[in-house]
Amino acid sequence: MKTLLISHADLNAIVAHVGIDAFMDELIQRLQSALAKFDPDITEIPVRDGFHYEAPVTGLIEWMPLLEHQRSVLMKVVGYHPNSPGTLQLPTILSTLSKYDPSSGHLVALVDGTFPTAMRTGAASAVASLAMAKPESSVVGLIGCGAQAVTQLHALCRVFDIRKVLISDIDKHALETFARRIDAFAPGHLSVQKATTDDIVSQSDILCVATSVEIGKGPVFQDQETKPWLHVNAVGSDFPGKIECPVALLERSYVCPDVQEQAIREGECQQLAASRIGDDLVSVVKNTPRHAELQARLSVFDSTGWALEDHVVMNQILEYAEDFNIGSEIEIESVTSDPRHPYEFLAPSNKHRKSGS
Amino acid sequence: MKTLLISHADLNAIVAHVGIDAFMDELIQRLQSALAKFDPDITEIPVRDGFHYEAPVTGLIEWMPLLEHQRSVLMKVVGYHPNSPGTLQLPTILSTLSKYDPSSGHLVALVDGTFPTAMRTGAASAVASLAMAKPESSVVGLIGCGAQAVTQLHALCRVFDIRKVLISDIDKHALETFARRIDAFAPGHLSVQKATTDDIVSQSDILCVATSVEIGKGPVFQDQETKPWLHVNAVGSDFPGKIECPVALLERSYVCPDVQEQAIREGECQQLAASRIGDDLVSVVKNTPRHAELQARLSVFDSTGWALEDHVVMNQILEYAEDFNIGSEIEIESVTSDPRHPYEFLAPSNKHRKSGS
Repeated sequence: MKTLLISHADLNAIVAHVGIDAFMDELIQRLQSALAKFDPDITEIPVRDGFHYEAPVTGLIEWMPLLEHQRSVLMKVVGYHPNSPGTLQLPTILSTLSKYDPSSGHLVALVDGTFPTAMRTGAASAVASLAMAKPESSVVGLIGCGAQAVTQLHALCRVFDIRKVLISDIDKHALETFARRIDAFAPGHLSVQKATTDDIVSQSDILCVATSVEIGKGPVFQDQETKPWLHVNAVGSDFPGKIECPVALLERSYVCPDVQEQAIREGECQQLAASRIGDDLVSVVKNTPRHAELQARLSVFDSTGWALEDHVVMNQILEYAEDFNIGSEIEIESVTSDPRHPYEFLAPSNKHRKSGS
Repeated sequence: MKTLLISHADLNAIVAHVGIDAFMDELIQRLQSALAKFDPDITEIPVRDGFHYEAPVTGLIEWMPLLEHQRSVLMKVVGYHPNSPGTLQLPTILSTLSKYDPSSGHLVALVDGTFPTAMRTGAASAVASLAMAKPESSVVGLIGCGAQAVTQLHALCRVFDIRKVLISDIDKHALETFARRIDAFAPGHLSVQKATTDDIVSQSDILCVATSVEIGKGPVFQDQETKPWLHVNAVGSDFPGKIECPVALLERSYVCPDVQEQAIREGECQQLAASRIGDDLVSVVKNTPRHAELQARLSVFDSTGWALEDHVVMNQILEYAEDFNIGSEIEIESVTSDPRHPYEFLAPSNKHRKSGS
C-alpha cells in the first residue's frame, strides 16, 4: 500500500515547474473559492489543540485535523519554536501534512508542511486584504521580517499594486537580509525602506505584523493616527498570552478572526470583548456587498491559522505532483494477504526464535 | 533533516531478529513498568478525539497525541473501518505513529502503527489480566477471532499457562482460520476448540471479547453463570454506541477502564453509572496489595486504547531499529540554510517563471 511522499525537495521541484508567482496566484484563488463555498456540513474542522511547554525550550506542537466528508482527512502537525532560527538554524515553524483515506484509514500522502504553511498564511492575508483593504493600496508595512513576512508581501504583491514596503524588525540580521529574501518575486518598481514602527503604522495602507514577540511582552507597536482605511493582517498572535496589536487600535477596528474560538484563545481577539469581534473570514468573504464599507475603514484580520488553508494548499500540491510526476512512493502500512493475521509475515524459521538463540 | 521511516517490512525484520515471543515479553514488561510509574505531570495524554462517519463506509479516524515532557511528542492516527477485511482486504485497524522532537517540532520518526497497535492491545490485556485474573488461569475464551484475538491470546500465553482456548466468531472464515493464525506462538499443549458463546462464558478463566459488532447491536454474549474469578478483557468496545458485554455481567464485576473519560464515552463503561466504575488501569496496576482480591472475583478490563501503550511500543521499536540498524531515512522537512528565507531554494532561473513560458 503506497504512500506518496512530497518532501521539501519535491516542493522545490514543483515550484520550479509552476513558478512561485503562479503557485501563489493559484493558491489565493483556490483559498478564496474554498472560503466562499465553505460549508461546515461538508468540511468538519475541530478547533485545534496542542501541547504548550517551556522546556527544553519555549514551544508548542499542535494538531490541526480536517475531514472533508467522503473525500479525505487531513492531519497537520505543526511546531512553533521561536528560538529555532537563532539556536538550531531551523525555521520557527516546522510542520507536516498527512492525508488519510476515509474509506480505509490509509495514509495516502505525507507532505512537508513548512513551505506550504508560509504560502497559505500569505494567501490568507491576501484574501482577507482583498475583502477589507483599500483596492488602491500601494504601501505595505511589515513589522517582523522573518519567514512569514516574505510570503505576506509576496501574496499582497500578487493582488495589489504594491509600490513601497516599510520594514522593521528588532533583529538586525532579519532586517538587513529582507530585501535579498524577496528577490524571487519583488516587482522592479518596489521600494524597500527601513522605518520606525511609528512611521510604518502611520504610512501603510496594509500592515502585516508577524513577530516572535514573547508571551506578555506585546504589543509590538504603539497606537497612533493611521490612514483611515488601514488594514492590518495580524499574523503572529497565535499563542495564549501572545499579542502584537495595541488594544486601542483593535477597538477602533473591524476585527475579523479566521476562527473565532481560536482567535479568542490565542489571537488578537484575546484582548477584545466578544461584542467587539466581527464576523469570521468565511462570513466576511461570503458577504461581498459589505466589502466596500470594510475597505473604507480600519480593519484587522486576526490570523491564527486554519486547517482549511492547509487543506487547500495540500490539495493544490498533490495535483501538481500528479501533473508533473513529482514525489516518491513509500510503503509504510504494507498489509498481509489475510487482514485478520497480524503474524502472517512470520516465516516458520522465526517461530519461537529468540534474540541470541 | 532526517526522518526515520519504520515500515511494516522493517517491523517484520525487527521481529525476525528478536522473535515474536521476546518482542511480546519485552512489551508486556515495559507496559507494566510504564503504567506502574505513570505520572501525568511527566506524560500528558489528552483524551483522544476523532471523526466518526457513516459514508463512504462506517468508520472513524482518530488522533491520539502524547507529550513526554522534554523528550518526545507522539501522534498516533488510527482508522477503524470494520468493513475493510471483507471489501478491501485491509485490516480493520490501520494506523501510523509519528514521533516529534519537542525542541524543534521536527518529525523524528514515522512508524507503521498497525502491527504495533495489535501488539500493544494484547500486551495491555496481559498486564490487566496479571492484576485481575486468577494466576492459575488456563482456559481462555475468545469471542471474535480477528486480528486482535491473535495478539490477545499471544500475550496471555506469555504470562499464564494457557492449556485450552475456546473460540467463537459469527464469521466462519475467521473461525476456521484461527488455529492457523496462532501457529507462530501457540504452545504445543494448547487445545483450540470451537464453542458456543454460552460455553465460552461459563468455562473460561479469562475471556477476551474483540468483535466488530455494529453500533446498537451488542452485547455479543448473554449473561449467565461464570467461574467466580472470571476476568474479561473487553477489547472491541471503542466507539460511541458500540458495546460487547451484557450490562448485568458488568454490574456484578469490578470494571477497570484504561482511561475513564474515554471508556465512559465509547467503552463498556457507557453502560454503567459512574459509581459502578472502578479505578483505571494505572491505579489498579499501582495498587499491588489489592490484586489478590481482584483476582478472586469477577473483573472486566474495559480496553478502549491509550496513547501510553502506543508510546511504549513505539519506543521499543525505535530501540530495536537502532540496535539492528533497521529502517530507512527520508528527508521531508529539509530546510534552507537561512531559516527566515522560505524562497531560498528558488534559483534565479525560476524567478517569475510561469508554467508553459
